[in-house]
Amino acid sequence: MNAPAEPHGWNRLTRAREERLARATARLGAGLRGKVADASNVVALLEEIIAPGDRVCLEGNNQKQADFLARALTRVDASRVHDLHMVQSVVALPEHLDLFEQGIASRLDFSFSGPQAARLARLVGDRRIAIGAIHTYLELFSRYFVDLTPHVALVAAQAADREGNLYTGPNTEDTPLIVEATAFKSGIVVAQVNELLEKLPRVDIPADWVNFVVRSPNPHYIEPLFTRDPAQISEIQVLMAMMAIRGVYAEYDVDRLNHGIGFDTAAIELLLPTYAMALGLKGRICRHWALNPHPTLIPAIEAGFVESVHSFGSELGMEDYIRARPDIFFTGPDGSMRSNRAFCQTAGHYACDMFIGSTLQIDLQGNSSTATLGRIAGFGGAPNMGADARGRRHATRAWLKAGREAQRTTHEMPRGRKLVCRRWKRFASTWSPRSSNDWMRGNSRKPRTWSSRRS
Amino acid sequence: MNAPAEPHGWNRLTRAREERLARATARLGAGLRGKVADASNVVALLEEIIAPGDRVCLEGNNQKQADFLARALTRVDASRVHDLHMVQSVVALPEHLDLFEQGIASRLDFSFSGPQAARLARLVGDRRIAIGAIHTYLELFSRYFVDLTPHVALVAAQAADREGNLYTGPNTEDTPLIVEATAFKSGIVVAQVNELLEKLPRVDIPADWVNFVVRSPNPHYIEPLFTRDPAQISEIQVLMAMMAIRGVYAEYDVDRLNHGIGFDTAAIELLLPTYAMALGLKGRICRHWALNPHPTLIPAIEAGFVESVHSFGSELGMEDYIRARPDIFFTGPDGSMRSNRAFCQTAGHYACDMFIGSTLQIDLQGNSSTATLGRIAGFGGAPNMGADARGRRHATRAWLKAGREAQRTTHEMPRGRKLVCRRWKRFASTWSPRSSNDWMRGNSRKPRTWSSRRS
Repeated sequence: MNAPAEPHGWNRLTRAREERLARATARLGAGLRGKVADASNVVALLEEIIAPGDRVCLEGNNQKQADFLARALTRVDASRVHDLHMVQSVVALPEHLDLFEQGIASRLDFSFSGPQAARLARLVGDRRIAIGAIHTYLELFSRYFVDLTPHVALVAAQAADREGNLYTGPNTEDTPLIVEATAFKSGIVVAQVNELLEKLPRVDIPADWVNFVVRSPNPHYIEPLFTRDPAQISEIQVLMAMMAIRGVYAEYDVDRLNHGIGFDTAAIELLLPTYAMALGLKGRICRHWALNPHPTLIPAIEAGFVESVHSFGSELGMEDYIRARPDIFFTGPDGSMRSNRAFCQTAGHYACDMFIGSTLQIDLQGNSSTATLGRIAGFGGAPNMGADARGRRHATRAWLKAGREAQRTTHEMPRGRKLVCRRWKRFASTWSPRSSNDWMRGNSRKPRTWSSRRS
Repeated sequence: MNAPAEPHGWNRLTRAREERLARATARLGAGLRGKVADASNVVALLEEIIAPGDRVCLEGNNQKQADFLARALTRVDASRVHDLHMVQSVVALPEHLDLFEQGIASRLDFSFSGPQAARLARLVGDRRIAIGAIHTYLELFSRYFVDLTPHVALVAAQAADREGNLYTGPNTEDTPLIVEATAFKSGIVVAQVNELLEKLPRVDIPADWVNFVVRSPNPHYIEPLFTRDPAQISEIQVLMAMMAIRGVYAEYDVDRLNHGIGFDTAAIELLLPTYAMALGLKGRICRHWALNPHPTLIPAIEAGFVESVHSFGSELGMEDYIRARPDIFFTGPDGSMRSNRAFCQTAGHYACDMFIGSTLQIDLQGNSSTATLGRIAGFGGAPNMGADARGRRHATRAWLKAGREAQRTTHEMPRGRKLVCRRWKRFASTWSPRSSNDWMRGNSRKPRTWSSRRS
């Protein structure tokens, strides 16, 4: 070659990892036994394994939070650990933004920030945070393997054994993908766990992929997405659900689908064993779902409407029901579910015929928005679930019919198309868009104004 | 509820699995120690764990083949095991189609069948095979979690330990996803391995997810995709590569990309450290790749052009080079690569700005085809890699520029767009499209007529 190779170490990353691991071992001393670090040493551990400018994934799911590690990261010495580039799907906890106020982190690539949306907008306005981009989940995950690979991942699991094998329980969510991207590019993986066990119920992530395990003083936080009272569903929502079933589900034989969360789609789920059954639609619609285990799906499951449900995450309180219905859900040999946001988003993108959700704003071209002035809430999964997947090649009746209807001229190459339904309504003065979703999210600490972007 | 639940077992799948496992244990007797079955008992094993009508994934990758299990499946008693629905990404081996001629299988959902394309077309014409659909890889994978979940998966790995943990080596490919979909929906997973080890170099798939391990008499077959002689690259291909670098890569700052295989893109890879360097493009283009470890990328890597490569599969003969360049490739603690077709396809879909490949036929709208009369070759990864991902939200210069150029009116909402390049040429009588790719695939057992659809 004419161009001489410039001096280049080919194992800078692995060498840096070895040096960091050695520093951590030296500093923690007896506070580290094998891979297991004492909770009291975690701040010190993070100071040794994270370097200025690192890309760090602080999990950061739609539901499960590595909250203990998040708090620890806010307590590192900012003169040692600073200018971190946070690459995490969800900015959910106050600590996720404290990092920026304290000068520990400076750059953010993310997908969804619902609970912190207003504060995030303020910090961006104050130039405390440089946003790389706002992504749909699967898009951000894909960048973990291309140009946003984490140097350090701080994740959460239900349990670990002494070797460092991890058991996630039903809220597997993003964890396996985050760990794979980090561990196989010479990064460092730290897992907080609720318990240390001699023998795990099952292994979700092999010990080889994990460098440190910390037993957290408190179980990790899981955001309940679906705490709701079906009695709050309004007459209008029941009527709209009947219109959707009769006018869309029955017309298109919508058999593989995703629902957003909210009372509107909950009403559809609840009406399957009665109204849809009376229309003779059992076995024709709604058999295969990419969906969290919504409690409002239970009547349809019990009526034999549903054949399978693959899930992004779980729903608190649904553990026993899932365990009793292994034909329907994806469960492990231990009986608990393994969710997987990456694969469920892929299923929603390529194997579902319909995505139905709500939106705050929509224009005449059908562009919809969940962002409003003063809030940077992000997208979550909606743009991926709701995009017509143009790489799709397999046909279903729903896909072909929607494609025929969308064809503009007879000269075009015929192709199918995904059905995307956005429901929105006009409001009387006592009926704000805000309130309908607030009711749905009973455990919310503050009002929320979106419903479909989270899955 | 008004509609009474009909009689319904909620653990039919787990009960069926238990019954099948018990039958296998009884029949194999001393031929089964823990999860490890003797190779001589594999036909009997398959007869006990597979039932008529089952969906079966017989791996079946673009490269790595569970060939021993494929041969065993062709030898089961077709009066006991029949009407199987094969769901596998690649139909590569003669045995994959023998199953249909022998009445063991009757239905096929797949992605790519290059080596068997002509025979497949004949069998479909003779009504021996009912094709469900032809998918792009990621699309088929997504259906494993929705409506095409395998009841039984027959996979291949490099090694297993006695507990059933699997080590794939660099050709990880589709295996983790296949096993996850099967194991967590109460299916049965059988792995053929080249060796049984006391301690694996690393764990790629946890033992909990695997039911049986068989040491194959011969190492599994891996199809070499890239056996080539750069001296065969023609002057025209060098000229076209220079035009691509100057006219596309430099104009759009194409920095994250996938290449198809073939001499055309190999020429581009080889010209990066010379022609592209002379144009001052180092650090501006071609830093991040979703690509198998092409040998023709080595000069660019050595020149410091390349920062990272995530791979669908591997390339035979590249193992030592990958091990010596952990900064570039995704390698495990053991030093060997972990590839992952699902995540690399996702990266190609969402995190790459350009897909460049060849095609046999193209129309004026840009629709391209790799299928011709008398051959059903399937799509592989191309439609996914080449589709404009409309769920994408993050911006790059390449994506924005391509989007601006594609905008039809100034009233449209501006958005970015993926660059998709298809190269094709007109041929003199001595220069057929067939030959250019045949050269590239030196180990091919028969001429091939495609180059870009495999990745």
